[in-house]
Parts: sequence; C-alpha cells; structure tokens
Amino acid sequence: MIRALADPTRRAVVERLASSPAVVSELAAPFDMSLPSFMQHLGILESAGVVATEKQGRVRTVSLRPGGLDVLHLWLGEQRTPAEHRADRLGIHLVRTHQDRSTP
Amino acid sequence: MIRALADPTRRAVVERLASSPAVVSELAAPFDMSLPSFMQHLGILESAGVVATEKQGRVRTVSLRPGGLDVLHLWLGEQRTPAEHRADRLGIHLVRTHQDRSTP
Repeated sequence: MIRALADPTRRAVVERLASSPAVVSELAAPFDMSLPSFMQHLGILESAGVVATEKQGRVRTVSLRPGGLDVLHLWLGEQRTPAEHRADRLGIHLVRTHQDRSTP
Repeated sequence: MIRALADPTRRAVVERLASSPAVVSELAAPFDMSLPSFMQHLGILESAGVVATEKQGRVRTVSLRPGGLDVLHLWLGEQRTPAEHRADRLGIHLVRTHQDRSTP
C-alpha cells in the first residue's frame, strides 16, 4: 500500500480522485506518458486497494475506494511520540473546557 | 518521506521508536542484517526527517522526530472521499450532541 503511494504520478492521481471519480482518458491527460504506462500506475493503485475501477462499454471510470487509505492513516496516527500524545490530550481537554464554558 | 516508509525494516524501526528513543545497538538487535546495512536504513529515515540521532561519546541515540510524520498524515487525511467527509461531519455532530446532553 505505502509502495503504491511512493510515486508522484500515483499520488497526483489520488489527489485528483479525492474530489470526484474520473474516466481514464481524463485522468491520464495531465501526464506526459503513454497510456500503457499510465494503466500500469492505475493497476498498482488498484492492487493496493487505493482505487476501484468500473468498465461500462468502452469507458473505464476510476474512483478512490472509500476507506482505502485508512490503514496507512491509522498506522501513521499510532506512530505519534509520547510528547505528541500528551499534546493531543491537552488539545482535547482545552476543546472540552471551552465547550463546557460556552454551553448556557 | 513516503519512500522512507516503503520498507518493512524502516517501518519496524519507527514502530519501536514510537514508545521511546533507543540506542543504535538496541534498535538493530531484532534485525538479521549487518550494522552498515542497518545504518543505511537509519540514514534514509534521518534524511526524510522521520528520526533524529544524537551522539554522546560512542553511543548514538535515535528518536522519532516530533511532527516528523505529520506531513504524510495530513496528506492522507486530505485524500478522503466526499462520502468520508460527510461521515466525519456526522461523527463530529453526534459527539457534540452527546456532549451537550451529558453537560449538567
């Protein structure tokens, strides 16, 4: 999964898909590479579970798979240092204190 | 940065350091590789800003750099699909509603 994102083309595809699904030709347009090379990148993202593709007739639509990046996002969240965890708890405490005060 | 984490040895080092800093010999012990190979992995993590090392006499201590993984964590958070964003907002709404109710 993390290897799938260790490439600037594939990260750009993920960023584009974050706003909406897109057909392959539209997705490929900004990149200066052959369609077979681009399809290889898509294949890596699909194998990693980051994107899903659906073919209707001759048109293939690509979308970000909901939750597809969660495993990595959670892993990164778990690698916070003890100091960061303390800062998180302080932040949560301050938000709660503020909410308590602003409740009539 | 993401390339630095696209390797199981380096991810294992990050997981170990998440609990506390460690000296190089202790960090290297679980891995079946030469010290120079291990130092190469550490060098990649240090260049990526994920870890920091400090040498005192002959002992080098390695620690997770606070905030070092934040860029990647934030990027992943931004790539959520519209449906996930809606789910986030619903979750936040439910937490707030619950807090309001439980406030005396």
